[in-house]
Amino acid sequence: MPLGTDYARQDCSLARALEIVGERWTMLILRDCFLGVRRFTDFQAHLDISRAVLSARLEALVADGLLTRTGSGHPSYELTETGIALWPAMFALLQWGDRLTTPGAPRRLYRHVGCGDLGPDGRCEACGRHPAPRDVEARPGPGADPTLRDDAVSVALRQPHRLLEPLALR
Amino acid sequence: MPLGTDYARQDCSLARALEIVGERWTMLILRDCFLGVRRFTDFQAHLDISRAVLSARLEALVADGLLTRTGSGHPSYELTETGIALWPAMFALLQWGDRLTTPGAPRRLYRHVGCGDLGPDGRCEACGRHPAPRDVEARPGPGADPTLRDDAVSVALRQPHRLLEPLALR
Repeated sequence: MPLGTDYARQDCSLARALEIVGERWTMLILRDCFLGVRRFTDFQAHLDISRAVLSARLEALVADGLLTRTGSGHPSYELTETGIALWPAMFALLQWGDRLTTPGAPRRLYRHVGCGDLGPDGRCEACGRHPAPRDVEARPGPGADPTLRDDAVSVALRQPHRLLEPLALR
Repeated sequence: MPLGTDYARQDCSLARALEIVGERWTMLILRDCFLGVRRFTDFQAHLDISRAVLSARLEALVADGLLTRTGSGHPSYELTETGIALWPAMFALLQWGDRLTTPGAPRRLYRHVGCGDLGPDGRCEACGRHPAPRDVEARPGPGADPTLRDDAVSVALRQPHRLLEPLALR
């Protein structure tokens, strides 16, 4: 990947992580995977990016072992355990973005299914644990702006949705 | 910043966060700030990037409120509380990069000063808390490769160093 050569002389795990997820759009594609998006056309409609960029990013994520691709024709992309292991970093970035841009009014809220809401450190406020993403449900928060997008993914995500479960889009 | 326009139609705090820290090199500059780098020439020697890119990134980080610049001539850059609040996200990305690229042999180890080592979730293994970065000491781990760089910052970081304290370089 293009960043690799630039960061190669940094003896640092952050540099290695960024070689894989630091490309433009890559983290947003992975976010969509956590939210249950699996098909090329759905990523494209939700992210509003070119087919070429999306295609290159998905290709790289499969090559780097973060996604699997199954089926031909209209393949389905799913996070591997390596991809799922990015959840704490993604959640921490989300929280930071929320506090910075919509303080006091998060765009999305997260709940440990059948237990309690997640606090800003990702811990369930009821049981004190860090639930795995497959035990977390996302729903729009008070800072969400539903007027921004009306593609099928955005519309589906106006309802609470369990992470990693495929969105019912068609 | 360039990414802003692209991500502007994403109703998502991750997109907002990436508008600020998603530019190439930005997270590595912030990592250096946590490690105690404060001067332009030291960032440049440690990161091996062009003056123009470094200058643009520092400028943007000051404008976005993540760094303060003090002094003229050879100004000093320091993380603000907003910048310091990125620590959980940065630590989580570091840990993910370590597990992926040097499994079982982290490049850097982190310790809650006067207490215990940090586990992969950033919690102190002795007291169970998430210490603030100013209470954390970094040191080279078994996966570090000291042959990669010999600039003054890299040499100074071969010793344990408390985060956010300025590195003694001259």
